[in-house]
Amino acid sequence: MFMGSPGDTTTPYVPTPRTTPTRARERVSYDRELVHSVLDAGYLCHLGFVRDGAPVVLPTLYARAGERLYVHGSTGSRPLRDAGRPEVRADGGMPVCVTVTHVDGLVLAKSAFHHSVNYRSVVVHGRAVQVTDHEERLLALDALVDNVVPGRAADSRPADARELAATAVLRVELAEVSVKVRTGGPKDEPEDLGLPHWSGVLPVAPVYGTPVPADDLAPGIPVPGYLTAR
Amino acid sequence: MFMGSPGDTTTPYVPTPRTTPTRARERVSYDRELVHSVLDAGYLCHLGFVRDGAPVVLPTLYARAGERLYVHGSTGSRPLRDAGRPEVRADGGMPVCVTVTHVDGLVLAKSAFHHSVNYRSVVVHGRAVQVTDHEERLLALDALVDNVVPGRAADSRPADARELAATAVLRVELAEVSVKVRTGGPKDEPEDLGLPHWSGVLPVAPVYGTPVPADDLAPGIPVPGYLTAR
Repeated sequence: MFMGSPGDTTTPYVPTPRTTPTRARERVSYDRELVHSVLDAGYLCHLGFVRDGAPVVLPTLYARAGERLYVHGSTGSRPLRDAGRPEVRADGGMPVCVTVTHVDGLVLAKSAFHHSVNYRSVVVHGRAVQVTDHEERLLALDALVDNVVPGRAADSRPADARELAATAVLRVELAEVSVKVRTGGPKDEPEDLGLPHWSGVLPVAPVYGTPVPADDLAPGIPVPGYLTAR
Repeated sequence: MFMGSPGDTTTPYVPTPRTTPTRARERVSYDRELVHSVLDAGYLCHLGFVRDGAPVVLPTLYARAGERLYVHGSTGSRPLRDAGRPEVRADGGMPVCVTVTHVDGLVLAKSAFHHSVNYRSVVVHGRAVQVTDHEERLLALDALVDNVVPGRAADSRPADARELAATAVLRVELAEVSVKVRTGGPKDEPEDLGLPHWSGVLPVAPVYGTPVPADDLAPGIPVPGYLTAR
Protein backbone atom coordinates (compact mmCIF):
# COMPACT_ATOMS: atom_id res chain seq x y z
CA MET A 1 0.00 0.00 0.00
CA PHE A 2 2.15 2.81 -1.32
CA MET A 3 0.02 5.84 -0.72
CA GLY A 4 -0.33 5.35 3.02
CA SER A 5 -3.22 3.81 4.83
CA PRO A 6 -6.43 5.68 4.06
CA GLY A 7 -7.35 5.09 7.69
CA ASP A 8 -10.31 6.65 9.42
CA THR A 9 -10.22 10.37 8.78
CA THR A 10 -12.52 10.97 11.75
CA THR A 11 -9.80 9.78 14.15
CA PRO A 12 -7.69 12.75 15.18
CA TYR A 13 -3.91 12.70 15.39
CA VAL A 14 -2.66 11.94 18.89
CA PRO A 15 -1.14 15.01 20.58
CA THR A 16 2.44 14.71 21.84
CA PRO A 17 4.46 17.10 23.99
CA ARG A 18 5.88 18.81 20.94
CA THR A 19 2.53 19.19 19.20
CA THR A 20 0.98 20.65 22.36
CA PRO A 21 1.39 24.43 22.42
CA THR A 22 2.22 26.27 25.61
CA ARG A 23 -0.15 29.07 24.59
CA ALA A 24 -3.03 29.91 22.20
CA ARG A 25 -4.23 26.36 22.83
CA GLU A 26 -7.68 27.27 21.57
CA ARG A 27 -6.27 27.57 18.07
CA VAL A 28 -4.67 24.14 17.85
CA SER A 29 -6.39 21.05 16.51
CA TYR A 30 -5.46 17.48 15.69
CA ASP A 31 -8.42 16.95 13.40
CA ARG A 32 -7.33 14.77 10.52
CA GLU A 33 -9.65 16.22 7.89
CA LEU A 34 -8.65 19.76 8.84
CA VAL A 35 -4.97 18.85 8.63
CA HIS A 36 -5.51 17.28 5.23
CA SER A 37 -7.48 20.26 3.93
CA VAL A 38 -4.78 22.73 5.00
CA LEU A 39 -2.05 20.60 3.44
CA ASP A 40 -4.04 20.11 0.23
CA ALA A 41 -4.64 23.87 -0.09
CA GLY A 42 -0.92 24.47 -0.67
CA TYR A 43 2.19 23.21 -2.40
CA LEU A 44 5.04 25.09 -0.71
CA CYS A 45 6.35 23.89 2.63
CA HIS A 46 9.28 24.90 4.77
CA LEU A 47 11.38 21.85 5.54
CA GLY A 48 13.46 22.01 8.69
CA PHE A 49 16.32 19.71 9.57
CA VAL A 50 19.45 19.80 11.69
CA ARG A 51 22.94 19.97 10.25
CA ASP A 52 26.01 20.15 12.50
CA GLY A 53 23.72 20.88 15.45
CA ALA A 54 22.14 23.93 13.81
CA PRO A 55 18.71 24.28 12.24
CA VAL A 56 18.26 24.66 8.48
CA VAL A 57 14.94 25.71 6.93
CA LEU A 58 14.48 25.44 3.17
CA PRO A 59 11.42 26.10 1.02
CA THR A 60 10.39 23.19 -1.15
CA LEU A 61 7.36 21.69 -2.86
CA TYR A 62 5.39 18.88 -1.24
CA ALA A 63 2.43 16.63 -1.92
CA ARG A 64 0.22 14.60 0.38
CA ALA A 65 -0.94 11.11 -0.48
CA GLY A 66 -3.06 9.59 2.25
CA GLU A 67 -1.07 9.75 5.46
CA ARG A 68 2.21 10.41 3.71
CA LEU A 69 3.90 13.63 2.76
CA TYR A 70 6.43 13.67 -0.06
CA VAL A 71 9.16 16.14 -0.93
CA HIS A 72 11.71 15.75 -3.68
CA GLY A 73 14.85 17.28 -5.02
CA SER A 74 18.13 16.69 -6.74
CA THR A 75 20.14 13.75 -5.44
CA GLY A 76 22.92 16.34 -5.13
CA SER A 77 21.09 18.59 -2.66
CA ARG A 78 22.29 18.34 0.90
CA PRO A 79 19.12 17.41 2.83
CA LEU A 80 18.34 14.71 0.31
CA ARG A 81 21.89 13.38 0.47
CA ASP A 82 21.78 13.53 4.27
CA ALA A 83 18.56 11.53 4.40
CA GLY A 84 20.12 8.83 2.26
CA ARG A 85 23.20 8.27 4.40
CA PRO A 86 23.43 4.70 5.77
CA GLU A 87 23.59 5.77 9.43
CA VAL A 88 20.53 7.99 8.97
CA ARG A 89 18.63 5.20 7.25
CA ALA A 90 19.60 2.81 10.03
CA ASP A 91 18.27 5.37 12.51
CA GLY A 92 14.82 5.41 10.88
CA GLY A 93 15.38 8.52 8.79
CA MET A 94 16.36 12.16 9.17
CA PRO A 95 14.49 14.12 11.84
CA VAL A 96 12.51 16.83 10.07
CA CYS A 97 9.81 19.35 10.72
CA VAL A 98 7.61 20.23 7.76
CA THR A 99 5.51 23.36 8.10
CA VAL A 100 2.85 24.65 5.72
CA THR A 101 1.32 28.08 6.28
CA HIS A 102 -1.44 30.01 4.53
CA VAL A 103 -2.02 33.65 5.45
CA ASP A 104 -5.71 34.59 5.08
CA GLY A 105 -5.83 38.09 6.51
CA LEU A 106 -4.12 40.86 8.42
CA VAL A 107 -5.89 41.56 11.70
CA LEU A 108 -5.76 45.21 12.76
CA ALA A 109 -6.71 45.87 16.36
CA LYS A 110 -7.09 49.16 18.18
CA SER A 111 -3.95 48.30 20.15
CA ALA A 112 -0.60 47.37 18.61
CA PHE A 113 -0.46 44.42 21.01
CA HIS A 114 -3.60 42.74 19.65
CA HIS A 115 -2.58 42.93 16.02
CA SER A 116 -2.56 39.47 14.53
CA VAL A 117 -2.80 37.44 11.37
CA ASN A 118 -5.51 35.07 10.23
CA TYR A 119 -3.77 31.91 9.12
CA ARG A 120 -3.89 28.16 8.75
CA SER A 121 -0.71 26.27 9.53
CA VAL A 122 0.19 22.59 9.77
CA VAL A 123 3.33 21.43 11.56
CA VAL A 124 4.52 17.87 10.93
CA HIS A 125 7.23 16.30 13.08
CA GLY A 126 8.77 13.09 11.87
CA ARG A 127 11.59 11.37 10.10
CA ALA A 128 12.20 11.70 6.40
CA VAL A 129 13.16 8.51 4.64
CA GLN A 130 14.35 8.14 1.07
CA VAL A 131 11.80 6.38 -1.08
CA THR A 132 13.51 3.59 -2.98
CA ASP A 133 10.52 1.64 -4.31
CA HIS A 134 10.15 2.44 -8.01
CA GLU A 135 6.34 2.47 -8.04
CA GLU A 136 6.11 4.69 -4.99
CA ARG A 137 8.64 7.10 -6.47
CA LEU A 138 6.59 7.41 -9.66
CA LEU A 139 3.37 7.97 -7.72
CA ALA A 140 5.07 10.55 -5.49
CA LEU A 141 6.53 12.47 -8.45
CA ASP A 142 3.12 12.56 -10.17
CA ALA A 143 1.57 13.74 -6.90
CA LEU A 144 4.18 16.50 -6.59
CA VAL A 145 3.34 17.85 -10.05
CA ASP A 146 -0.42 17.44 -9.63
CA ASN A 147 -0.40 19.10 -6.22
CA VAL A 148 0.95 22.30 -7.82
CA VAL A 149 -1.19 22.13 -10.97
CA PRO A 150 -3.94 19.49 -10.75
CA GLY A 151 -4.12 17.55 -14.00
CA ARG A 152 -0.62 18.47 -15.14
CA ALA A 153 1.16 15.15 -14.50
CA ALA A 154 -0.85 13.48 -17.26
CA ASP A 155 -0.17 16.43 -19.59
CA SER A 156 3.64 16.40 -19.55
CA ARG A 157 6.41 14.00 -20.48
CA PRO A 158 7.10 11.61 -17.58
CA ALA A 159 10.61 11.45 -16.19
CA ASP A 160 13.00 9.20 -18.09
CA ALA A 161 15.55 6.90 -16.47
CA ARG A 162 18.25 9.56 -16.30
CA GLU A 163 15.91 12.12 -14.72
CA LEU A 164 14.62 9.55 -12.26
CA ALA A 165 18.18 8.68 -11.26
CA ALA A 166 18.87 12.37 -10.58
CA THR A 167 15.80 12.79 -8.37
CA ALA A 168 15.51 11.85 -4.72
CA VAL A 169 12.12 11.51 -3.06
CA LEU A 170 11.62 11.76 0.69
CA ARG A 171 8.61 10.50 2.63
CA VAL A 172 7.37 11.67 6.00
CA GLU A 173 4.52 9.84 7.70
CA LEU A 174 1.70 12.01 9.01
CA ALA A 175 1.60 10.89 12.62
CA GLU A 176 2.84 13.66 14.90
CA VAL A 177 0.85 16.50 13.41
CA SER A 178 -1.00 19.58 14.56
CA VAL A 179 -2.85 22.36 12.84
CA LYS A 180 -3.41 25.92 14.03
CA VAL A 181 -6.09 28.19 12.66
CA ARG A 182 -6.94 31.78 13.47
CA THR A 183 -10.05 33.31 11.95
CA GLY A 184 -12.24 36.33 12.63
CA GLY A 185 -11.73 39.87 13.71
CA PRO A 186 -9.49 41.55 16.26
CA LYS A 187 -9.93 40.84 19.97
CA ASP A 188 -9.59 44.27 21.47
CA GLU A 189 -9.61 45.22 25.13
CA PRO A 190 -13.03 46.65 26.08
CA GLU A 191 -11.40 49.88 27.26
CA ASP A 192 -9.84 50.40 23.81
CA LEU A 193 -13.08 50.28 21.84
CA GLY A 194 -13.56 54.04 22.01
CA LEU A 195 -10.21 54.76 20.38
CA PRO A 196 -10.41 56.45 16.97
CA HIS A 197 -8.37 53.80 15.09
CA TRP A 198 -10.02 51.68 12.41
CA SER A 199 -10.07 47.99 13.33
CA GLY A 200 -10.85 44.93 11.29
CA VAL A 201 -9.36 42.47 8.86
CA LEU A 202 -7.63 42.97 5.51
CA PRO A 203 -8.17 39.69 3.62
CA VAL A 204 -5.32 38.34 1.53
CA ALA A 205 -5.07 35.35 -0.79
CA PRO A 206 -2.83 34.18 -3.61
CA VAL A 207 -4.26 35.15 -6.99
CA TYR A 208 -3.16 33.63 -10.28
CA GLY A 209 -2.52 35.83 -13.30
CA THR A 210 -2.72 35.26 -17.02
CA PRO A 211 -0.58 32.31 -18.18
CA VAL A 212 2.59 33.46 -19.98
CA PRO A 213 3.62 31.09 -22.82
CA ALA A 214 7.25 29.98 -22.97
CA ASP A 215 9.41 31.73 -25.57
CA ASP A 216 9.98 28.39 -27.26
CA LEU A 217 6.34 27.25 -27.24
CA ALA A 218 5.20 26.35 -30.73
CA PRO A 219 2.22 28.39 -31.97
CA GLY A 220 -1.20 26.82 -31.85
CA ILE A 221 -0.91 25.02 -28.49
CA PRO A 222 -3.77 26.38 -26.39
CA VAL A 223 -3.62 27.18 -22.68
CA PRO A 224 -4.97 24.04 -20.98
CA GLY A 225 -8.30 24.13 -19.17
CA TYR A 226 -6.74 23.28 -15.81
CA LEU A 227 -4.91 26.62 -15.97
CA THR A 228 -7.68 28.85 -17.27
CA ALA A 229 -10.00 27.52 -14.55
CA ARG A 230 -7.59 28.73 -11.87
CA MET B 1 22.95 52.18 17.47
CA PHE B 2 19.83 50.09 17.96
CA MET B 3 18.71 49.48 14.41
CA GLY B 4 21.89 47.84 13.24
CA SER B 5 24.70 49.43 11.34
CA PRO B 6 23.44 50.89 8.08
CA GLY B 7 26.72 49.75 6.58
CA ASP B 8 27.51 49.81 2.90
CA THR B 9 24.69 48.10 1.06
CA THR B 10 26.94 47.55 -1.94
CA THR B 11 29.10 45.14 0.07
CA PRO B 12 27.70 41.62 -0.32
CA TYR B 13 27.31 39.15 2.54
CA VAL B 14 30.26 36.81 2.83
CA PRO B 15 29.41 33.25 1.73
CA THR B 16 29.98 30.45 4.25
CA PRO B 17 29.82 26.69 3.75
CA ARG B 18 26.18 26.61 4.84
CA THR B 19 25.14 29.50 2.59
CA THR B 20 26.88 27.90 -0.41
CA PRO B 21 24.49 25.58 -2.24
CA THR B 22 25.63 22.28 -3.64
CA ARG B 23 23.47 22.83 -6.70
CA ALA B 24 21.57 25.54 -8.65
CA ARG B 25 24.47 27.84 -7.77
CA GLU B 26 23.48 30.23 -10.53
CA ARG B 27 20.38 31.17 -8.51
CA VAL B 28 22.13 32.12 -5.29
CA SER B 29 23.30 35.61 -4.42
CA TYR B 30 24.77 37.41 -1.43
CA ASP B 31 23.82 40.85 -2.69
CA ARG B 32 22.82 42.95 0.27
CA GLU B 33 20.26 45.12 -1.51
CA LEU B 34 18.61 42.07 -3.04
CA VAL B 35 18.45 40.36 0.36
CA HIS B 36 16.93 43.47 1.89
CA SER B 37 14.37 43.83 -0.90
CA VAL B 38 13.21 40.22 -0.58
CA LEU B 39 12.93 40.54 3.21
CA ASP B 40 11.11 43.86 2.95
CA ALA B 41 8.59 42.40 0.48
CA GLY B 42 7.20 40.07 3.15
CA TYR B 43 6.21 39.78 6.77
CA LEU B 44 5.87 36.03 7.37
CA CYS B 45 8.97 33.97 8.01
CA HIS B 46 9.52 30.37 9.00
CA LEU B 47 11.69 30.25 12.10
CA GLY B 48 13.68 27.08 12.62
CA PHE B 49 15.36 26.03 15.82
CA VAL B 50 16.44 22.81 17.50
CA ARG B 51 14.69 21.34 20.51
CA ASP B 52 15.83 18.05 22.05
CA GLY B 53 17.96 17.42 18.98
CA ALA B 54 15.04 17.70 16.55
CA PRO B 55 14.15 20.56 14.23
CA VAL B 56 11.12 22.77 14.84
CA VAL B 57 9.79 25.17 12.20
CA LEU B 58 7.17 27.72 13.17
CA PRO B 59 5.58 30.50 11.12
CA THR B 60 5.89 33.94 12.66
CA LEU B 61 6.01 37.61 11.72
CA TYR B 62 9.30 39.44 11.30
CA ALA B 63 10.66 42.87 10.53
CA ARG B 64 14.02 44.04 9.27
CA ALA B 65 15.73 47.12 10.64
CA GLY B 66 19.09 47.73 9.04
CA GLU B 67 21.13 44.57 9.46
CA ARG B 68 18.88 43.16 12.15
CA LEU B 69 15.88 40.91 11.89
CA TYR B 70 13.30 40.90 14.67
CA VAL B 71 10.67 38.35 15.64
CA HIS B 72 8.42 38.51 18.66
CA GLY B 73 5.97 36.49 20.63
CA SER B 74 4.52 35.72 23.99
CA THR B 75 7.04 35.32 26.78
CA GLY B 76 5.22 32.02 27.35
CA SER B 77 5.98 30.56 23.93
CA ARG B 78 8.67 27.91 23.88
CA PRO B 79 11.20 29.30 21.39
CA LEU B 80 11.11 32.68 23.09
CA ARG B 81 11.52 31.06 26.50
CA ASP B 82 14.33 28.90 25.15
CA ALA B 83 16.20 31.91 23.78
CA GLY B 84 16.02 33.60 27.17
CA ARG B 85 17.53 30.74 29.17
CA PRO B 86 20.78 31.73 30.92
CA GLU B 87 22.88 28.97 29.32
CA VAL B 88 21.60 29.98 25.87
CA ARG B 89 22.33 33.65 26.53
CA ALA B 90 25.82 32.73 27.76
CA ASP B 91 26.29 30.80 24.52
CA GLY B 92 25.55 33.85 22.36
CA GLY B 93 21.92 33.03 21.70
CA MET B 94 19.77 30.26 20.26
CA PRO B 95 20.88 28.85 16.88
CA VAL B 96 18.13 29.66 14.39
CA CYS B 97 17.46 29.64 10.69
CA VAL B 98 14.99 32.22 9.44
CA THR B 99 13.61 31.67 5.95
CA VAL B 100 11.39 34.00 3.93
CA THR B 101 9.90 32.81 0.65
CA HIS B 102 7.78 34.50 -2.01
CA VAL B 103 6.28 32.40 -4.80
CA ASP B 104 5.98 34.41 -8.03
CA GLY B 105 4.90 31.82 -10.54
CA LEU B 106 4.36 28.17 -11.39
CA VAL B 107 6.69 27.05 -14.16
CA LEU B 108 5.21 24.41 -16.46
CA ALA B 109 7.69 22.63 -18.68
CA LYS B 110 7.08 20.06 -21.41
CA SER B 111 8.64 17.45 -19.12
CA ALA B 112 7.54 16.72 -15.57
CA PHE B 113 11.20 16.85 -14.52
CA HIS B 114 11.69 20.49 -15.54
CA HIS B 115 8.63 21.81 -13.75
CA SER B 116 9.67 24.48 -11.31
CA VAL B 117 8.56 27.51 -9.36
CA ASN B 118 9.59 31.12 -9.74
CA TYR B 119 10.44 32.35 -6.28
CA ARG B 120 12.54 34.64 -4.14
CA SER B 121 13.84 33.21 -0.89
CA VAL B 122 16.17 34.47 1.82
CA VAL B 123 17.80 32.12 4.32
CA VAL B 124 19.36 33.63 7.44
CA HIS B 125 21.57 31.55 9.72
CA GLY B 126 22.40 32.99 13.09
CA ARG B 127 21.72 33.15 16.77
CA ALA B 128 18.59 34.68 18.21
CA VAL B 129 19.10 36.79 21.30
CA GLN B 130 16.43 38.25 23.52
CA VAL B 131 16.28 42.00 23.23
CA THR B 132 16.30 43.51 26.69
CA ASP B 133 16.98 47.18 25.92
CA HIS B 134 13.71 49.09 26.35
CA GLU B 135 14.26 51.48 23.42
CA GLU B 136 15.25 48.70 21.05
CA ARG B 137 12.20 46.66 22.10
CA LEU B 138 9.89 49.59 21.33
CA LEU B 139 11.52 50.21 17.96
CA ALA B 140 11.33 46.50 17.10
CA LEU B 141 7.65 46.24 18.05
CA ASP B 142 6.80 49.28 15.91
CA ALA B 143 8.80 47.78 13.05
CA LEU B 144 6.90 44.50 13.41
CA VAL B 145 3.54 46.26 13.07
CA ASP B 146 4.70 48.60 10.29
CA ASN B 147 6.25 45.76 8.30
CA VAL B 148 2.82 44.12 8.04
CA VAL B 149 0.86 47.32 7.48
CA PRO B 150 3.10 50.34 6.80
CA GLY B 151 1.87 53.34 8.76
CA ARG B 152 -0.13 51.30 11.27
CA ALA B 153 2.17 51.56 14.30
CA ALA B 154 1.43 55.30 14.57
CA ASP B 155 -2.31 54.63 14.14
CA SER B 156 -2.84 52.22 17.06
CA ARG B 157 -2.47 52.31 20.82
CA PRO B 158 1.14 51.51 21.78
CA ALA B 159 1.76 48.60 24.13
CA ASP B 160 1.35 49.40 27.82
CA ALA B 161 3.64 48.12 30.57
CA ARG B 162 1.67 44.91 31.09
CA GLU B 163 1.63 44.11 27.39
CA LEU B 164 5.33 44.88 27.05
CA ALA B 165 6.08 42.56 29.95
CA ALA B 166 4.18 39.78 28.20
CA THR B 167 6.09 40.21 24.93
CA ALA B 168 9.51 38.82 24.11
CA VAL B 169 11.51 40.19 21.18
CA LEU B 170 14.29 38.24 19.50
CA ARG B 171 16.99 39.72 17.32
CA VAL B 172 19.05 37.95 14.65
CA GLU B 173 21.93 39.74 12.98
CA LEU B 174 22.00 39.61 9.20
CA ALA B 175 25.49 38.24 8.63
CA GLU B 176 25.30 34.68 7.31
CA VAL B 177 22.69 35.26 4.64
CA SER B 178 21.92 34.12 1.12
CA VAL B 179 19.12 34.76 -1.34
CA LYS B 180 17.90 32.55 -4.14
CA VAL B 181 15.84 33.79 -7.04
CA ARG B 182 14.35 31.94 -9.97
CA THR B 183 12.69 33.93 -12.75
CA GLY B 184 11.67 33.31 -16.32
CA GLY B 185 10.17 30.48 -18.28
CA PRO B 186 10.74 26.73 -18.33
CA LYS B 187 14.09 25.30 -19.42
CA ASP B 188 13.05 22.39 -21.56
CA GLU B 189 15.26 19.83 -23.24
CA PRO B 190 15.60 20.69 -26.96
CA GLU B 191 14.24 17.27 -27.92
CA ASP B 192 11.04 17.95 -25.95
CA LEU B 193 10.10 21.16 -27.74
CA GLY B 194 7.95 19.35 -30.30
CA LEU B 195 5.73 17.79 -27.64
CA PRO B 196 2.10 18.94 -27.69
CA HIS B 197 2.01 20.14 -24.05
CA TRP B 198 1.55 23.82 -23.27
CA SER B 199 4.56 25.32 -21.51
CA GLY B 200 5.03 28.60 -19.74
CA VAL B 201 4.49 30.36 -16.43
CA LEU B 202 1.37 30.88 -14.36
CA PRO B 203 2.07 34.04 -12.35
CA VAL B 204 0.88 34.18 -8.73
CA ALA B 205 0.93 36.94 -6.15
CA PRO B 206 -0.85 37.75 -2.91
CA VAL B 207 -3.80 40.04 -3.48
CA TYR B 208 -5.53 42.02 -0.75
CA GLY B 209 -9.31 42.14 -0.57
CA THR B 210 -11.78 44.68 0.73
CA PRO B 211 -11.13 45.58 4.41
CA VAL B 212 -13.72 44.00 6.75
CA PRO B 213 -14.55 46.22 9.73
CA ALA B 214 -14.53 44.64 13.20
CA ASP B 215 -17.94 43.81 14.67
CA ASP B 216 -17.22 46.21 17.52
CA LEU B 217 -15.94 49.08 15.37
CA ALA B 218 -17.87 52.26 16.09
CA PRO B 219 -19.62 53.72 13.04
CA GLY B 220 -18.00 56.66 11.27
CA ILE B 221 -14.39 55.52 11.46
CA PRO B 222 -13.17 55.40 7.86
CA VAL B 223 -10.88 52.78 6.38
CA PRO B 224 -7.40 54.34 6.59
CA GLY B 225 -5.57 55.34 3.44
CA TYR B 226 -2.71 52.92 4.09
CA LEU B 227 -5.22 50.08 3.65
CA THR B 228 -7.18 51.34 0.65
CA ALA B 229 -3.91 51.97 -1.20
CA ARG B 230 -3.00 48.33 -0.88
